[in-house]
Amino acid sequence: MFTLHPTLERDSLPIVEDDDLVLRLINDARYPWVIIVPKVPDIRELHELSEPMFDKIMALVRHVGGVMTTAFAADKINTAAIGNMVPQLHIHIVARREDDAAWPAPVWGVGEMQPLEQGEVTRRVSCIRDGLGLS
Amino acid sequence: MFTLHPTLERDSLPIVEDDDLVLRLINDARYPWVIIVPKVPDIRELHELSEPMFDKIMALVRHVGGVMTTAFAADKINTAAIGNMVPQLHIHIVARREDDAAWPAPVWGVGEMQPLEQGEVTRRVSCIRDGLGLS
Repeated sequence: MFTLHPTLERDSLPIVEDDDLVLRLINDARYPWVIIVPKVPDIRELHELSEPMFDKIMALVRHVGGVMTTAFAADKINTAAIGNMVPQLHIHIVARREDDAAWPAPVWGVGEMQPLEQGEVTRRVSCIRDGLGLS
Repeated sequence: MFTLHPTLERDSLPIVEDDDLVLRLINDARYPWVIIVPKVPDIRELHELSEPMFDKIMALVRHVGGVMTTAFAADKINTAAIGNMVPQLHIHIVARREDDAAWPAPVWGVGEMQPLEQGEVTRRVSCIRDGLGLS
């Protein structure tokens, strides 16, 4: 049985979900930042995914990267599966700009998260859903 | 025409190469760390890869992650395409241990690289080549 890890639940907001995965927006005003979490219990590593699930997750990584580049005028997309602290496989996709709070460093472990205002949550979620062709 | 970026050339050593990609060992004693560089000129982003090339690169990411877990008794694999500073698409795969120099932080931008001794280069390259089933 899959349950979203409480840290990921606390730090993120739903964008879309299906039987295999959840896509969520990290609640941080500093960067447009999403995570994809495969609904597979008890795995930490990309290579622990079955091949079909790996292919599905990676296809979404590719799609979301393109969507976020356009939607947020990103200078660079940063994609990563790290998970040293949260032991549930999750893949980060972050739209970076050369004037953002951490550039050119990666975002992980830099400063404090800045919660989004509700209007900006709605705007970011809509941009990503629209880009993915969801209604 | 593809040419390996000079920073990646300087910081890494060859493991294996084919028509589509190079797999190289980062010259840093602190962690077993490799990069995969698709031989595609002038791209910075995963989503700029063609679908067949993306699939091939990702299949190798998956394979190498499993191999490095076993070969280096990794507690966690960290996988990332960042590229904020080096503008040539490259994917990092790092075998992390809970007692390594940066744990639990990501490795990027932490401390100074520590060049490998030749014996350790040979050992790491052999472990990875053997794990991948290369002679």
